[in-house]
Amino acid sequence: MTKLESPIDAPVAKTLRDHARVLPPDVSADDFAEAIKAMRDAIGADNVRDDDDTVSRYYDAFPVTDDPTDFAPSGVVYPGSTEEVQAIVRVANEYLIPLHAFSTGRNLGYGGSAPRTAGSLLIDLGKRLNRVLEINEKYAYALIEPGVSYYDLYNAIQEKGYGLWIDAPDLAWGSVVGNTMDRGVGYTPYGDHGMWKSGLEVVLPDGDVLRTGMGGLPGSNTWQLFPASFGPQPDNLFVQSNFGIVTKMGIQLLPAPPDSLTFQITFDKAADLEQIIDIMLPLRINMAPLQNVPVLRNIFLDAAQVSKRSDWFDGDGPIPDDVVERMKRELNLGYWNFYGTCYGPRPVIDQYIAMIEGAFTQIPGAHFYTTETRPSTPEDLGAHTLHDRHKINTGVPTTEEANVFNWIPDAGHFFFSPISAPDGADALRQFEMVKKRADEFEKDYCAQFVIGLREMHHISLLLYDTTDSAHRSETLSLVRTLIDEAAAEGYGEYRSHNVLNDQIAATYSWNDNAQLRFNERLKDALDPNGILNPGKAGIWPARLRGRGL
Amino acid sequence: MTKLESPIDAPVAKTLRDHARVLPPDVSADDFAEAIKAMRDAIGADNVRDDDDTVSRYYDAFPVTDDPTDFAPSGVVYPGSTEEVQAIVRVANEYLIPLHAFSTGRNLGYGGSAPRTAGSLLIDLGKRLNRVLEINEKYAYALIEPGVSYYDLYNAIQEKGYGLWIDAPDLAWGSVVGNTMDRGVGYTPYGDHGMWKSGLEVVLPDGDVLRTGMGGLPGSNTWQLFPASFGPQPDNLFVQSNFGIVTKMGIQLLPAPPDSLTFQITFDKAADLEQIIDIMLPLRINMAPLQNVPVLRNIFLDAAQVSKRSDWFDGDGPIPDDVVERMKRELNLGYWNFYGTCYGPRPVIDQYIAMIEGAFTQIPGAHFYTTETRPSTPEDLGAHTLHDRHKINTGVPTTEEANVFNWIPDAGHFFFSPISAPDGADALRQFEMVKKRADEFEKDYCAQFVIGLREMHHISLLLYDTTDSAHRSETLSLVRTLIDEAAAEGYGEYRSHNVLNDQIAATYSWNDNAQLRFNERLKDALDPNGILNPGKAGIWPARLRGRGL
Repeated sequence: MTKLESPIDAPVAKTLRDHARVLPPDVSADDFAEAIKAMRDAIGADNVRDDDDTVSRYYDAFPVTDDPTDFAPSGVVYPGSTEEVQAIVRVANEYLIPLHAFSTGRNLGYGGSAPRTAGSLLIDLGKRLNRVLEINEKYAYALIEPGVSYYDLYNAIQEKGYGLWIDAPDLAWGSVVGNTMDRGVGYTPYGDHGMWKSGLEVVLPDGDVLRTGMGGLPGSNTWQLFPASFGPQPDNLFVQSNFGIVTKMGIQLLPAPPDSLTFQITFDKAADLEQIIDIMLPLRINMAPLQNVPVLRNIFLDAAQVSKRSDWFDGDGPIPDDVVERMKRELNLGYWNFYGTCYGPRPVIDQYIAMIEGAFTQIPGAHFYTTETRPSTPEDLGAHTLHDRHKINTGVPTTEEANVFNWIPDAGHFFFSPISAPDGADALRQFEMVKKRADEFEKDYCAQFVIGLREMHHISLLLYDTTDSAHRSETLSLVRTLIDEAAAEGYGEYRSHNVLNDQIAATYSWNDNAQLRFNERLKDALDPNGILNPGKAGIWPARLRGRGL
Repeated sequence: MTKLESPIDAPVAKTLRDHARVLPPDVSADDFAEAIKAMRDAIGADNVRDDDDTVSRYYDAFPVTDDPTDFAPSGVVYPGSTEEVQAIVRVANEYLIPLHAFSTGRNLGYGGSAPRTAGSLLIDLGKRLNRVLEINEKYAYALIEPGVSYYDLYNAIQEKGYGLWIDAPDLAWGSVVGNTMDRGVGYTPYGDHGMWKSGLEVVLPDGDVLRTGMGGLPGSNTWQLFPASFGPQPDNLFVQSNFGIVTKMGIQLLPAPPDSLTFQITFDKAADLEQIIDIMLPLRINMAPLQNVPVLRNIFLDAAQVSKRSDWFDGDGPIPDDVVERMKRELNLGYWNFYGTCYGPRPVIDQYIAMIEGAFTQIPGAHFYTTETRPSTPEDLGAHTLHDRHKINTGVPTTEEANVFNWIPDAGHFFFSPISAPDGADALRQFEMVKKRADEFEKDYCAQFVIGLREMHHISLLLYDTTDSAHRSETLSLVRTLIDEAAAEGYGEYRSHNVLNDQIAATYSWNDNAQLRFNERLKDALDPNGILNPGKAGIWPARLRGRGL
C-alpha cells in the first residue's frame, strides 16, 4: 500500500471583512433575514451561517477585480443529506435567494468557492455531504457524495486494500464530483473524467430529485455500471451548468495494472513544439503505445515546482532567453518536457517504451529518461516533475503542483484554456499567440498541453500578484484579449473563471449564439425562479438576464 | 482493400392499402391537406408524398398489433438540406402535424420506420440527406448526414483508401446516425457508438438549429475532435428522444490496427453461463486481453444463421433437449458460443489469445477455435458465425445475421433487451427468467449477451409469424410479461419497440417517475406545440399526454 504524504494546504481567501454586507439582487435585508431564519428552521441553526467571519472565508482566494464584493457570497449553509439540499432549494425559491452549490470549493484559478452572482447563498456540500457510499472492487467503481476529495477516495480505497486506482487532477485536494462536473481531466488512462462517471443523483432547481441512468429503476444493481437508461440521457446537462445540484455520483475506477513506468522526454527548443505534436498523434490516437493522458510542459512550469522566479531573474519584463538557457542547463530540462506512463506486464511496457523513445528521440537534442534511469535525488531538481507525474499517473494523489503558486510572491492565477487539434501547426499557432501577448504584458508563458485522444487542452497559467491592483487588472486584460484572439482563429475555451463566463459563452456564437439560447430555454424550464447559480457558464435566468459583465 | 459483398435486402412492410387514411390526432382532413400543400410549397411537390402506394411502404415490416393503423404514418417528406428540415418543422408547428424523422428506417424489431403516433408525417432523411461530408484520416473521424448507412460509410472510406474502420452493428444496412442516436452498439473496440460520436447539428422542434460542442464556435477545426464546448453538453438529450432531428453527426473511427484474429469458444452446457461470465469479467474490464465488445450467443442464434427451424424440428412447443443435442453435434457448436477478436502486432495478439484460451478452457467441454484453426468451408456450418463475426469485428459490414429471419416462415421479431451486471449469477438469473417464460409461451430462447466494460446487453430475439394474429399477440404478451418481471428484479431495458415505450418508461419509476417527469418538462419547453415524435420513449407533449398505450 502506497504511503501517502500530507497534502499542502490550499490557499484561502484573505479576510475581507471591511465591506458592506452583500445581499442578493432585488432582495431586501428583511427578506434575506427571513430566508435565513427559514433555512435555520429547515436544516438546523448550526448549519446556516451569515456572520462575516465565516462568510469571508468563502471569497475567491485570488480576487481578480478591484471590488472584492463583485463575487461575494451572502451566507453559507451546510446540508447533511439530499433532503436538506431539497429543503434549502425550496426556501430559496420562496425568497428568490440565488444559490451557489460547490463541493469543496477549491477550483483555484476558476473562482474558488465564490459565486458568479454577488449575494448568493453558498451551499457548502463538503462539510457534511462527504461520504464514500460504496466502493465496489469487482466492478471497479465508487459511489460518492460531493464533499469527497481525491485524497478521501484514495484513502478509502487503501483502507479496504482494493487494487483500484483513482484518476486525480494535478492537485488532488479538490472534490471528485466538483472536478468531474466542471469538466476536469486527469492523467491515467481514465483521464477524461466525464466519460467515466456513471449515475448521478441531482436536486433540481425546484427541489425535486432526479436519479439518472439505472438509478431510475428501483432495485437496479447497474446504476454505476451502465450510465444510460431508456430515453434521453441528461447527465452532461449538469456539467458546467446551473441546472441542478449533484448530491451523489458514481465514478468508475481503473483496476490497477500489473506494472507501470513513467518517462520524461526533454526537448531543447521552443520551436520543437510542432514536431513533438506531429510525432505524438499517431502514438496516442490508438491509446497505445501512449496509453495515458500525457502532458507536454514548458520549462517555466517545471521550474516553478522547484524554485522561485527570483532565484533566476529579478529584472523587469519577461525572463530573457539567456536566463532560460541557464534554467535548462541547471535543471537538465528542455524548453518542452513530455511526461507519460506505460502500463501492463513488464514486457509490454518495455516494448511500448522502446517505441516511444525511438519516435521522439528523432528530434535533435531530445533526451529520454524514466523513473528508473533518472532517480529522484536532492541534487537533481529537474527530476522532480518526473517523479511527481509518476504519482499522478499511477493513481496516487499529490499537491506538489501547488508549488507553482510560489513562483512569484502572493501569486494568484488565471487559467487560459483553449482546446487545440492534436496538430503541430495548430499547437505552434496557439503557442505563438499566447507567447506574443504574454511578452507584451510582461508575463511568463507557463503552459502545458494535456493530450486526449484527438484533442489537446492547451492550459496557460497566468500568474499575478494578488496584492497589486494594476497587476491584477493587466492580467485580466491579457486574458480577455486572448479569449477574443483565440475565438477569431476558431479556438474555444472549455472552462473559465467566473469573471470570464459571459465573454467565453459569447464566443460560441454560431447561429446567433444557438448554444446559449438553447441553454437559456432549458434554464427557464427547469429554474423558473432563477435561483440556481445565475450566470454560471453565461446562463442567466429570465429574471436576471442581461446582468452579465 | 476488402472486397465487399452485396447486402441482403431488408424486409419491407407488406402493402397495407386496405385501410382508411390515418390522420394525425385532432387534425381535420382539410387542415391536413393544407399542411401538405404548405410542405410542397416549402420543399417542392416531388418531395412530399401522401399517396397510399408510397406511404404504405413505411409501415412497420413486422406489425405486432392487429390493427395496422396503430402505428400508421399519414405521409412522407424528403428534405434535402437542413434548411428544408427547418421549413418542414415550421409548417408542422403551424398545423400541429406530428413528425417522425428517421434516418434509413431499418430499426427492425423496434418498429422500423413506423411512428409512435398514428397519423404522423414521416421525415425520411435517407433519401436526400445521405452525404458523407468529410472523412479525416489523420484524426480518424467522419462527418455524415443521417441517410448514410454503414455500407455507405465503409465504401466512402474504401474509395479514399484510408486505413480507418467503421464499427457496425450486426446488420450494416442501417444508418450510422440512426443507430447511434437510438443507443445502438457494435463489436470493435469502438462498440459503444454513443461514446464515439462527436458533434451534432440538430433541428429543434421550433425550427431553430443547434450545433453542439465546438460546432458552436465559428471557424473551429475541433468539432469532431472534442465533443464538448463551454457549459452543459446536451448531445445525449437527443438520444432516444423527441427533442430534435439530427441532421449532421461526427463519428470517430478506429484507425486500423496492424493485425487481428477472431476466436470462437464453444461451451457445452446451458448451465456453463455462470462460469463463463465470471471468467470473462476480469479479462474484459481493462480492455485487454478482451479488447473488443465480445458476444456470447446461444445455439439457436448460430443455428438460425445457417438453417431453418424446420430442418431440426417440426413438432409443437419449444425444441426438445435431444434435438438441441443433435444441433450441437452436427454444427460442432456449444449451447453457448463466445466470439471476440484480438488486435495489434501479431506477438501481442498471440499473447492475448493464449491468455483467453487458457482462461476459458478451464470450463469442462469448452473448445477454442480461431479463424485460422477453423476455416470457413461449405461443410462446416458451425464455422459460419465465427467468420461472419470476424468481418463485423474488423470493420467490414455484413447483413448475414438477417438469415435468422428465416428461422421460421414469415418471421417478425421483437427484441427484449435488459441490461445485466457482468456477473455469472445475474446472467443466469436473467437466462432462467426468459427461458422459463419462453418455454411457457412455446418460443425458442434465441439470445446473446453483448459485453461492454462493466455491463452486458442481454438481447433475446423473440420471433413470431407475422401472418398469424394469435402468434403475434402471444408474443406481445410474452414481452410485456418479461418487462414487468425483469423490472421487479431490478433489470431495465435500454431500447424498445414503439408498442412498448410507455411500459418500459414506466418501469423507471424511482421518485414518482422522476426521469419521465424531467423529460416531459424538457419536452414542453423545447416543443410547446408537441409536434416532434409524440410518445417516443414514453415522452408525450402536454397536448397529447395520457394517450399512451
